[in-house]
Amino acid sequence: MNFTSMIHKRWAQQTQVCVGLDPFPERFPAGMTDIFEFNRAIIDATASLACCFKPQFAHYAAIGAEAALKDTIKHIKANYPDVPVILDSKRGDIGSTATMYAKEAFEQYGADAVTINPYMGSDTVLPFTEFENKGVVILCRTSNPSAAEFQNQLIDGEPLYIHVARKAQTEWNKNGNVSLVVGATAPEEMADIRAAAPDLPFLVPGIGVQGGDLAGTLRNGSFKNGNGLMINSSRGILYASNGPDFAEAAYKETLKLKDAINSLC
Amino acid sequence: MNFTSMIHKRWAQQTQVCVGLDPFPERFPAGMTDIFEFNRAIIDATASLACCFKPQFAHYAAIGAEAALKDTIKHIKANYPDVPVILDSKRGDIGSTATMYAKEAFEQYGADAVTINPYMGSDTVLPFTEFENKGVVILCRTSNPSAAEFQNQLIDGEPLYIHVARKAQTEWNKNGNVSLVVGATAPEEMADIRAAAPDLPFLVPGIGVQGGDLAGTLRNGSFKNGNGLMINSSRGILYASNGPDFAEAAYKETLKLKDAINSLC
Repeated sequence: MNFTSMIHKRWAQQTQVCVGLDPFPERFPAGMTDIFEFNRAIIDATASLACCFKPQFAHYAAIGAEAALKDTIKHIKANYPDVPVILDSKRGDIGSTATMYAKEAFEQYGADAVTINPYMGSDTVLPFTEFENKGVVILCRTSNPSAAEFQNQLIDGEPLYIHVARKAQTEWNKNGNVSLVVGATAPEEMADIRAAAPDLPFLVPGIGVQGGDLAGTLRNGSFKNGNGLMINSSRGILYASNGPDFAEAAYKETLKLKDAINSLC
Repeated sequence: MNFTSMIHKRWAQQTQVCVGLDPFPERFPAGMTDIFEFNRAIIDATASLACCFKPQFAHYAAIGAEAALKDTIKHIKANYPDVPVILDSKRGDIGSTATMYAKEAFEQYGADAVTINPYMGSDTVLPFTEFENKGVVILCRTSNPSAAEFQNQLIDGEPLYIHVARKAQTEWNKNGNVSLVVGATAPEEMADIRAAAPDLPFLVPGIGVQGGDLAGTLRNGSFKNGNGLMINSSRGILYASNGPDFAEAAYKETLKLKDAINSLC
């Protein structure tokens, strides 16, 4: 089953929550040091509520914990095979090198999808989309403060992110496996991106710590018939408690976000 | 000594050749399978001629050979400490996550510089440039066929890549550690980028297999007083021979490129 179908099946379970697996060992509960052990507890607590999991590559690579990342994805695939894994590594290279990054994500790490950066154009994107069963999640309008510096610049009267969205919808989605990263911090822009890319799932960062607008996101980002979103929360879930009840607290936060989303749909 | 000073010292040795370390094990000489062993032979043969080395991350990550990449950089630092290493991993993320990617490149892999993607704006760049002694090599105008799709779009009458170049020169180079990736395949554009960023070294892909214009590159990309370039060749050097003389052939190809550059300066 391909990534997009997996996501649709999770949406049918009334969840649009993406659980971000961004380990900060210094925020783990007292006595816990092992990244995989922490992730496993979070995953076991939240898998039933999650639309997908999203480990952020840099959190592992910065401390040489690539093995914990592999073990984390293996644990999800072995125990929750219905919940897809997006490797958030924002790769961006061309041709045969892009294919190598696809192999890194899909073969070495076993992810179902990967985030990529479109600055270098179609040469970056198409080697990934050729992996028909895998998902390709393209940065479009990100949620960070300086995102607008280039992404919002007007080209022929429309911002760069609209050009990216349109190309994704009309040229890059031939295998039905493209999604877009669209931040919750700019809900009006999200409406324009949804108009340019009516069929593409949106991975939505920026809810929670970054202060994104959940109601605006659902109003402007959903598909015409509902769903369409993978709304990420990382720190809000992972560090809801730093006591021995951290996994239970993560469950409760995930449920709270899931319910908040469903109450607004 | 910081990355930019290291490069200036290599330029003073009359070399602007960047040796790209992109291992394709299927192109190694018969009987050789070990990536580190191959790289070591290439490095030992070419270090005296190289302005810098540039291992391409995906070639290692696609096959789980991160350890060979670490060993390769260690070998260069231990034996040729004057020749800086650019880790070509085209990272691009924000804030604390960007800092983690900087730690991946500079601490885990021990590189002197890293390539990064500017699509997400200053939030992507500044966490890297804070590592004052390290180099930050920002994608500006790349050499791939689809590079123009977004990079050449006009914003206020100027292509996106000029906006990136100008920001790099005027805002991001406070610590004097920023360089730009500018492909050899568009030498006229290189002249405009040099005008916008007169002080920044250019890492130049596209010579060799991609058919870039060496004379145009030197004419349009050099600093006003000469030098200014790190002209990359990977496959042309690494696979000059697939016989037992591959290292000697790599030496000869590197020398040929170095001489060709110097004859045009």
